[in-house]
Amino acid sequence: MPDITILGEAQLRSLVPLDLDAVGQIERAFLSLATEPVVMPPVLNLALHGRHGEVDVKTAYIPRFDSFAIKVSPGFFGNAALGLPSLNGLMLVLSAHTGLTEAVLLDNGYLTAVRTAAAGAVAARWLARPDARRVAIIGAGEQARLQLQALMLVRRVEHVAVWARDAERAAIYAADVEQRFDVRCSVASSVPEALDQADIAVTTTPSRVPLIHAHDLHRGLHITAMGSDADYKTELEPSVFDAVRYVCDRLQQVRTSGELAHAIRAGVLPADATFPELGEIIAGRAQGRTGPDDITACDLTGTGAQDTAIAVLALERARAAGAGMIFHNDMTR
Amino acid sequence: MPDITILGEAQLRSLVPLDLDAVGQIERAFLSLATEPVVMPPVLNLALHGRHGEVDVKTAYIPRFDSFAIKVSPGFFGNAALGLPSLNGLMLVLSAHTGLTEAVLLDNGYLTAVRTAAAGAVAARWLARPDARRVAIIGAGEQARLQLQALMLVRRVEHVAVWARDAERAAIYAADVEQRFDVRCSVASSVPEALDQADIAVTTTPSRVPLIHAHDLHRGLHITAMGSDADYKTELEPSVFDAVRYVCDRLQQVRTSGELAHAIRAGVLPADATFPELGEIIAGRAQGRTGPDDITACDLTGTGAQDTAIAVLALERARAAGAGMIFHNDMTR
Repeated sequence: MPDITILGEAQLRSLVPLDLDAVGQIERAFLSLATEPVVMPPVLNLALHGRHGEVDVKTAYIPRFDSFAIKVSPGFFGNAALGLPSLNGLMLVLSAHTGLTEAVLLDNGYLTAVRTAAAGAVAARWLARPDARRVAIIGAGEQARLQLQALMLVRRVEHVAVWARDAERAAIYAADVEQRFDVRCSVASSVPEALDQADIAVTTTPSRVPLIHAHDLHRGLHITAMGSDADYKTELEPSVFDAVRYVCDRLQQVRTSGELAHAIRAGVLPADATFPELGEIIAGRAQGRTGPDDITACDLTGTGAQDTAIAVLALERARAAGAGMIFHNDMTR
Repeated sequence: MPDITILGEAQLRSLVPLDLDAVGQIERAFLSLATEPVVMPPVLNLALHGRHGEVDVKTAYIPRFDSFAIKVSPGFFGNAALGLPSLNGLMLVLSAHTGLTEAVLLDNGYLTAVRTAAAGAVAARWLARPDARRVAIIGAGEQARLQLQALMLVRRVEHVAVWARDAERAAIYAADVEQRFDVRCSVASSVPEALDQADIAVTTTPSRVPLIHAHDLHRGLHITAMGSDADYKTELEPSVFDAVRYVCDRLQQVRTSGELAHAIRAGVLPADATFPELGEIIAGRAQGRTGPDDITACDLTGTGAQDTAIAVLALERARAAGAGMIFHNDMTR
């Protein structure tokens, strides 16, 4: 049996930083989704009733890779009280030739965080105005930080406005950003105030009520909505669909667990409403922004294709660096 | 972050032999399915088109356990030509309290083989005649061996007849069985010949055409059909449903990927045909065999509940024995 490479979070953090290589890897994954016979089954969701926990399992086979990932993402919302992260998990890398396990990436959710932020950068690269400088960040958690960091790889960010339900966390976020990125960051007292001057807005919350309404929008704005990945989460009020050019990561997913799901349930759009996927825009098969005045919105629910892409990158780099623990697993059958 | 226990196939083989404890653990998992609010989502299936490979992911949350398993089962049918097993895989054990990874069981499919054979023993224990002595095994692969070994834990087997498509493999099987178990084992020249004198028949093949027809059956027989776990596999001809008391592991699964799926597609039964589950019989909520002349059949497609039960047993034993490699995974967030 071939050996198995086991990597921990610290190693994976150093092997796969959030940089332009990661953004490029995720961009190509979106391109593959639109242009290759990628196989990406619906997400497996296990809800642990009474435990305030759930697990998502995502996977995708991208034909050009020799490996594919199976990603396990638990979310346990009582963990914070125990001093543990709510989101954690790991990725398995299997050979696309034999199905044998090649690697166990014990990333505690780090690679998911990177691939999610990288997707935000891809969305902004293809949909935000090229001259976008002012960013609104809605939410003040880990993705609020990483999405901003990713945006800075693809646009010259000169000002950040942050809004979060918890004003204290927003203030901490603003101080962190100013110190770390040497950019002005103001705390907004409302979502509309945060959006007011923004060229790009990124929503990063697990909100169950819409945060952005059609009347909050202005010409030229791009919104990346990355918070919703379940049917009970939403950040965009259905009226927003009338005002924006809407793009999604995977149509099949947003119909059931993205912003589109809510617009469909609200009766604003039919159940088979069709919108371009980000990969189709990258491939030149669909149009995103047509000019500086368009308002664009990209709905990111997170795809197994991103997981496979980031996991393959991690394993390639680990092998090149000779990193990781090698587990010899006897085959005794 | 809590440490992660990593166990390989050799350790798992010694920690979890196929014995009455394993059978009891699986029996209680069936009981849980019938009596507890077990959460068991549909199987995630990834088909790697053009690679002759697929992966199933199974999971289940059983409330009485503090952990649950996520089991990854690849099947790559070109592996034999490479000298590699077609079936392999691994199990992850996660905390039901926090979702954190507790263990990675690199079992290469061993635990799946054990829990599958153990389920066969549970089926025979509850459905075969108490005085059953003669066994027909259809197929000559790993499960043909393990199912027989499991049966011997619950019935006093005095004679085995084996039939396999490849007569040479059947002959090797018979010689192995006689040497290993000290029981007579004859090679049958046909399935009906194998069934002729049997009290219990176990079908263990990936056949795409039915192997057992209604006219092959005789009074008192019990059949465990464990080969079919996908919509293209079948071992029982739909006419068998008229002749037997049919029991399944999970109704929702057999309707789409078990023997019942074929009977439904053949129009012999309606899509919502309802039959008892093995757990309901164990719980006394449904009736299996009512007397020595009944013909019973148990359709086993394999459940995530079995995976969680066997993985929990493996981890308990590993902890008690201090077995496995401990992986310290820094939490740096």
